[in-house]
Amino acid sequence: MKNFADKLIQAIQKKGNPICVGLDPRMAQMPECVKKDSPAETFLEFNKGIIDAVADLVPVVKPQIAFYEQYGSEGYLAFEKTCEYAQSKGLIVIADAKRNDIGSTAEGYAQAFLGGFAVKADAVTVTPYLGYDGVKPFVEVCKKSDKGIFVLVKTSNKSSCELQDCDVSIPDGNMKVYELMGHYVESWGANEVGESGYSSIGAVVGATFPDQAKVLRKIMPQTIFLVPGYGAQGGAAEDVKPCFNKDGLGAIINSSRGIIFAYESSDYGPDGYQDAARDAVSKMARELSDVIGK
Amino acid sequence: MKNFADKLIQAIQKKGNPICVGLDPRMAQMPECVKKDSPAETFLEFNKGIIDAVADLVPVVKPQIAFYEQYGSEGYLAFEKTCEYAQSKGLIVIADAKRNDIGSTAEGYAQAFLGGFAVKADAVTVTPYLGYDGVKPFVEVCKKSDKGIFVLVKTSNKSSCELQDCDVSIPDGNMKVYELMGHYVESWGANEVGESGYSSIGAVVGATFPDQAKVLRKIMPQTIFLVPGYGAQGGAAEDVKPCFNKDGLGAIINSSRGIIFAYESSDYGPDGYQDAARDAVSKMARELSDVIGK
Repeated sequence: MKNFADKLIQAIQKKGNPICVGLDPRMAQMPECVKKDSPAETFLEFNKGIIDAVADLVPVVKPQIAFYEQYGSEGYLAFEKTCEYAQSKGLIVIADAKRNDIGSTAEGYAQAFLGGFAVKADAVTVTPYLGYDGVKPFVEVCKKSDKGIFVLVKTSNKSSCELQDCDVSIPDGNMKVYELMGHYVESWGANEVGESGYSSIGAVVGATFPDQAKVLRKIMPQTIFLVPGYGAQGGAAEDVKPCFNKDGLGAIINSSRGIIFAYESSDYGPDGYQDAARDAVSKMARELSDVIGK
Repeated sequence: MKNFADKLIQAIQKKGNPICVGLDPRMAQMPECVKKDSPAETFLEFNKGIIDAVADLVPVVKPQIAFYEQYGSEGYLAFEKTCEYAQSKGLIVIADAKRNDIGSTAEGYAQAFLGGFAVKADAVTVTPYLGYDGVKPFVEVCKKSDKGIFVLVKTSNKSSCELQDCDVSIPDGNMKVYELMGHYVESWGANEVGESGYSSIGAVVGATFPDQAKVLRKIMPQTIFLVPGYGAQGGAAEDVKPCFNKDGLGAIINSSRGIIFAYESSDYGPDGYQDAARDAVSKMARELSDVIGK
């Protein structure tokens, strides 16, 4: 039986690219043609359009739950329905929720996102500030039900340096906090390595820090990187190259605004948001193909 | 106009204790008398009972959203209704959500929990792994609408040492990660200090690490500590003493299971869960009163 990492690698190979489409809807950018009675229903309609447009092209989508939660339980329902719809179209779904807590509380989150009853997702993002107590309950669920997590290691934002780039003392000298977390994540995932050679316990590594990604790629050879920050946040294809292993695998590259709102900088216009998204995905696939595994 | 910290300090002084009741419902421990058609409705019924029982005794309640989210959007709705009911009974509500993200995504969370439309809460817990980019959007909302946040600094769980107790290099030597975060939080909150002398930007400091709390109290004189880990997690009144300033203020002490499920270790039985909760609060208030400000 294949674990989450195997399924993800297989999907990447089948689609021929490692693109993750971020489903981060914003009311101000919703085309008129998808508007419904409420923001939540509008988001769902828009997402279905994007999913229909990209489902045959990309392996993964990643809805970011904050955009939905700001509309409360109605937004949460739209998030659930988005995940379910994406899965029904054969896409792997990463719930970007950055949850973190301990013990039975973390178990609650693991159940919410990976238990299969509330949110229908294949993986969830997790923040490691609490240490392994906050990660283990998720790992246990991954083990039982072939799900995955992506643990924040080095994030794409500017102030990620405030904590993540600090030098910490280790017996032999110093290492950066993100390196320490990289070692932790690689070890936490060591028992979850599948047939593909990759682990179901992944890491979030921002596209905006290629030098740090290079270091982390060495520390975490079996870990799949989820890479945000491509496109709108400033990361280019060359920047994400260090996130891949020599086999051309080991990373998925997320783009949100650059794909879902591609219509804003194209001739298609709002009504053509689906075609614009398809074009943007194809362009990104070519850009990545030029640098991966070379 | 009073800010969040002022309102919190005023509520503590009015009630005469710094107790925060954690509303962390679990299906296995729901008394028969509150059971409804769904877990979500059952939780809401139970919470209303607890809120009615303690509203005249304590200043604050803290529902932990993971327990609700595991039941999806229905659970989320029960969380919203719990917060709204608690506020309607005059209680200050801290949404324990440990949210964290950057830019517009963090703004989404800030809107969700502090915007007043989705969740009716007065404050939310935030995880600082991403640096100030992940905290600033919350601070902005706090400033505008007299809300508060509590940033994780030193958590009560055992493996919190894995990252939080690391020695980081600073120009003059070394300090622990939790000390570094303590300095950050105190500075992030410096412009949010109210008439009470305390800031609306608070810190989470676990009851299980009194030595570290003592150090943090010195680093963060104007910061209010939200202290989990009392009771069921092992923290006693003596352990939380270092969390208070000499004025007897500066901390709120959370107990969840020890209060809401007090009926399990009392003569009241399940039907008397409200009376058991009141007794548990009174006992905790006496324990704290014996050590605070002495």
